[in-house]
Amino acid sequence: MSFNHFDGQGKAIMVDVSGKKKTLRTATAAATVHMSSNLLQAILDHKTTKGDVLGVARLAGIAASKKVPDLIPLSHPLAIHHAAIEFNCDVDQGTVEVQATVRAYERTGVEMEAMVSASLAALTIYDMCKGSEKDISIDAVRLLFKEGGKSGTYRAEGL
Amino acid sequence: MSFNHFDGQGKAIMVDVSGKKKTLRTATAAATVHMSSNLLQAILDHKTTKGDVLGVARLAGIAASKKVPDLIPLSHPLAIHHAAIEFNCDVDQGTVEVQATVRAYERTGVEMEAMVSASLAALTIYDMCKGSEKDISIDAVRLLFKEGGKSGTYRAEGL
Amino acid sequence: MSFNHFDGQGKAIMVDVSGKKKTLRTATAAATVHMSSNLLQAILDHKTTKGDVLGVARLAGIAASKKVPDLIPLSHPLAIHHAAIEFNCDVDQGTVEVQATVRAYERTGVEMEAMVSASLAALTIYDMCKGSEKDISIDAVRLLFKEGGKSGTYRAEGL
Amino acid sequence: MSFNHFDGQGKAIMVDVSGKKKTLRTATAAATVHMSSNLLQAILDHKTTKGDVLGVARLAGIAASKKVPDLIPLSHPLAIHHAAIEFNCDVDQGTVEVQATVRAYERTGVEMEAMVSASLAALTIYDMCKGSEKDISIDAVRLLFKEGGKSGTYRAEGL
Amino acid sequence: MSFNHFDGQGKAIMVDVSGKKKTLRTATAAATVHMSSNLLQAILDHKTTKGDVLGVARLAGIAASKKVPDLIPLSHPLAIHHAAIEFNCDVDQGTVEVQATVRAYERTGVEMEAMVSASLAALTIYDMCKGSEKDISIDAVRLLFKEGGKSGTYRAEGL
Amino acid sequence: MSFNHFDGQGKAIMVDVSGKKKTLRTATAAATVHMSSNLLQAILDHKTTKGDVLGVARLAGIAASKKVPDLIPLSHPLAIHHAAIEFNCDVDQGTVEVQATVRAYERTGVEMEAMVSASLAALTIYDMCKGSEKDISIDAVRLLFKEGGKSGTYRAEGL
Repeated sequence: MSFNHFDGQGKAIMVDVSGKKKTLRTATAAATVHMSSNLLQAILDHKTTKGDVLGVARLAGIAASKKVPDLIPLSHPLAIHHAAIEFNCDVDQGTVEVQATVRAYERTGVEMEAMVSASLAALTIYDMCKGSEKDISIDAVRLLFKEGGKSGTYRAEGL
Repeated sequence: MSFNHFDGQGKAIMVDVSGKKKTLRTATAAATVHMSSNLLQAILDHKTTKGDVLGVARLAGIAASKKVPDLIPLSHPLAIHHAAIEFNCDVDQGTVEVQATVRAYERTGVEMEAMVSASLAALTIYDMCKGSEKDISIDAVRLLFKEGGKSGTYRAEGL
Repeated sequence: MSFNHFDGQGKAIMVDVSGKKKTLRTATAAATVHMSSNLLQAILDHKTTKGDVLGVARLAGIAASKKVPDLIPLSHPLAIHHAAIEFNCDVDQGTVEVQATVRAYERTGVEMEAMVSASLAALTIYDMCKGSEKDISIDAVRLLFKEGGKSGTYRAEGL
Repeated sequence: MSFNHFDGQGKAIMVDVSGKKKTLRTATAAATVHMSSNLLQAILDHKTTKGDVLGVARLAGIAASKKVPDLIPLSHPLAIHHAAIEFNCDVDQGTVEVQATVRAYERTGVEMEAMVSASLAALTIYDMCKGSEKDISIDAVRLLFKEGGKSGTYRAEGL
Repeated sequence: MSFNHFDGQGKAIMVDVSGKKKTLRTATAAATVHMSSNLLQAILDHKTTKGDVLGVARLAGIAASKKVPDLIPLSHPLAIHHAAIEFNCDVDQGTVEVQATVRAYERTGVEMEAMVSASLAALTIYDMCKGSEKDISIDAVRLLFKEGGKSGTYRAEGL
Repeated sequence: MSFNHFDGQGKAIMVDVSGKKKTLRTATAAATVHMSSNLLQAILDHKTTKGDVLGVARLAGIAASKKVPDLIPLSHPLAIHHAAIEFNCDVDQGTVEVQATVRAYERTGVEMEAMVSASLAALTIYDMCKGSEKDISIDAVRLLFKEGGKSGTYRAEGL
C-alpha cells in the first residue's frame, strides 16, 4: 500500500501532474448536520424574517471550494468552473444534508474541492445555530460521486 | 428561537462584542475518520518510511485554526494563543479520532477555531488516503469541551 | 502638507502605533449603486424566488471588512469586533445606498475597514446585476461618520 | 429579468462555465477620487521627496486584481495575464481618475478584476490622504470597456 | 538596461503574457541554513521522537509555492503542477541546503515559485530552531536551474 | 536539546502563550541581495524614469510582515503595530542590504515577522531584476536585533 502524496522515500510532495491531460472533472460530496427538529423547523420558518441560515451557509460552501490550495497542504491549485450547494432537510429527523458539487476542466480531480465545500457549509450551519443548541454534530462527510478522471466514475455505495 | 448572527430584522451581522471582557477561552472539538483496518495499519507502520500522513494532517489542522475569519462568514478575527491536534487511532475499528484544542484570551469563544481545525485535519487524512480507498468518510464532528465564556463550561454528553 | 504613511524621507511605512492607547473606534462609510428602477424593483421583488442579491452583497461586505490588512498596503491588522451593512433603496431613483459600520477596540481607526466593506458590498451588487445592465455605476464612496480616535468625532457634511 | 448568479430556484451558484471556450478577454474600469486641488498638487509635487502616493496605490490596484475570487462571492478563479493602472490627474478639479486594465485568456470576463482593481487603487489613495483631508470621496466607479466575450465589445457611453 | 516589471514610462505593471504560448516550465532554487553541528545533529536524531523539523519545513515550502501571487507584487497567478523540497544536510558544516523544484505548464516561468518555496522552507527551519540558537542564518538563496522558456535553459555556474 | 514548536512527544504544536504577559517587542532582520554594480547603479539612477525597484520591494516587505501566520506553520497570529524597511546600497560591491523592523505589543516575539519581511523584500528585488541578470543571489538573511521578551535583548555579533 502506498500513499498519493509521498515520493518513494516517504517525503511529502505535490505530485507532478504536468504530464496529464485536462479532462472535465465533476465531484459531489455530502455532509449531514444533526440538530433538534425544533431548531431545523425554526431555520426553515425564519428564512425571510429572522435570517437565512442556509443562504449564509451556501455562500460559505462556495467560497470554501476556492480555498482548497490554502487549506489542503499537498493539493494543486485548480481553476474551478462551477460550484453549487444543495440542502436536503428532514425536519422529523432534524437533519440537513449538504451536497456540494464542483466542476473543472483540469489535470486532477475536484474531490477535495467538493469535500471542503460541503464541510464548510455544514460548519457554518453549526456556527449560526450553536447559540441555540450546543450538541449539534456533523456526520457522513463523504464523496458521493466523481467522474472525469483516469480511475473512472465513482458512485458511493447505495446511491 | 433566535439566531446568533442575525439582527432583529433577520440581517446577517458580525455581532458586536466590543463591550465584552476578554477572558481565557478554551475549546476542544473532534472529528472521526473511518477507513479500513489495513489502511490505518499502513499509516501507522509507514510513518517513517512511506510518509507521515498524520504529521501532515496535524499541520493542516493547526493552519486551519488560523483561517477561521476567512472561512466562517460572520466569525470575528481572533488572536489564537495555542493550537494542538491529537490523534486517537483504533486499528480494529479503522478509526482515527482527531481532537483539536484551541485557546485564546478573547472576547468571544474559540469553538469554531477548534471545529474547523479538527475538520481540516480529518479532510487532509482523507486527501492523503483517497488514492488507496475511495469510501473513507468522516463523522462525529462535534464540540467536546469549551470553557471561559459567559455561558460556562460545556462538556459533550458521555465525556 | 505631509502624508500619513511615509516617514520623513518619503519612504512608505506602517506607522508605529505601539505607543497609542486602545480606544473604542467606530466608523460608518457609504457607497451608492446606480441602476435602472426596473432592475432595482426586480432585486427587491425577487428576493425569495429569484435570488437574494442584497443578502449576498451583505456577506461580501462583512467578509471584506476582515481583509483590509491584505488589501490596503500600509494598514495595520486590526481585530474587528463588529461589522454590519445596511441598504437604503430608492426605486424611483434606481439607487442602493450601502452603509457599512465597523467597530473595534484598537489603537488606530477603522475607517478603511468601513470604506472597503461598503465598496465590496457595492461591487458585489454590480457583479450580480452586470448580466442584466452594463452601465451600472457606483458613486459617493465616502466616510459618513467616525468616532473614538484622538482627532475626535467626524460627521460628513450635511448629515 | 433574471440574475447571473442564481439558479432557476433563486439559489446562489458559481455558474458553470466549463462548456465555454477560452477567448482573450480585456476589461478597463475606472474610479475617480475627489480631493482639494492643494492636496492633489502636493501628491504630484512630493512624489520623490515626501512619498509616492500614486505608486503605492498602483501596486494596491494590481494586487487587488489577483484577489477577486476571495472578494466577490460567486466569481470564478481566473488566471490573469496582464494588469495595469493609469492615473489621470486634474489639479484644478482635484480629481484623480484611476483606470485599471486587466487581460486574460479565459472562459469568463474580467470585468470584476478591473472594477475591483480600480476601486482598491482609489481606496488606497483615500487611505494615504485621509490624515490630511477627511472628506475625500470616490465616484464614477464603472466599466469603461470590455471585449472578448460572447456579448461582444462594450464601451461606456460617451467614450 | 531596463526592468521586467515596468512599462516604458517606469510604471509598475503585471506584464502582458497573454500572447505567449504555454510551455512546460521547471525551476529549482536553493537556500542554505547555517547552524551549529550539534543543533543539526539533534534535528536529524530527533526526527521521530522530538519532532520532525525538516518535515514541517518541507510543508511550509510546498505551501509557499502556491502563495507567490500574494507575496510578489507583480507576479502572475500560475497553476503549479508539481512542487517538491529536498534537504542536503552536512553535519560537520552545520548546513542544511534546501532545494525547491516547481513545475508548471504555463506562459511564464516558475523561478519565483521555486525561490519563494526554498526561502520559506529555510525560514521555517530558522523558526523552529531559534529557541536553541539565535545566530542561525540563511545564505546562498539563488536559482540553480530553469528550463522551458524562450530564454532557454539556465544552470547556475559550477553545477 | 529541545525544539520550540514540539510538545514532549515530538508533536508539532502552536505553543501556548496565553499565560504570558504582553510586552513591547521589536525585531530587526536583514537580507543582502548581490548583483552587478552596473545593475545596482541602474536601479538607483532609474528610480523616477524607469521604475522604482526598491519602492516596490519595500511594499512587498511590509505586506509580508502581515502574512506570517499564513506562511510559518506554527507561528501565532500577531497584531503588528509598526513595520518599516531600509535599504543600504553599496554600488561598488553591488549589494543591497534590506533591513526590516517590526514592532508589536504582544505575548511572543516578532522575529519571524522581521525575517519574513526582509526575505520577501529581497526576493522582490530579485524578481524585478532577474530579466537583466540571472545569477543574482541573496545571503546573510539573519536577525540583527530583538528586544522586549523574557530572553532579553539580542544583538547580532559585530553590531
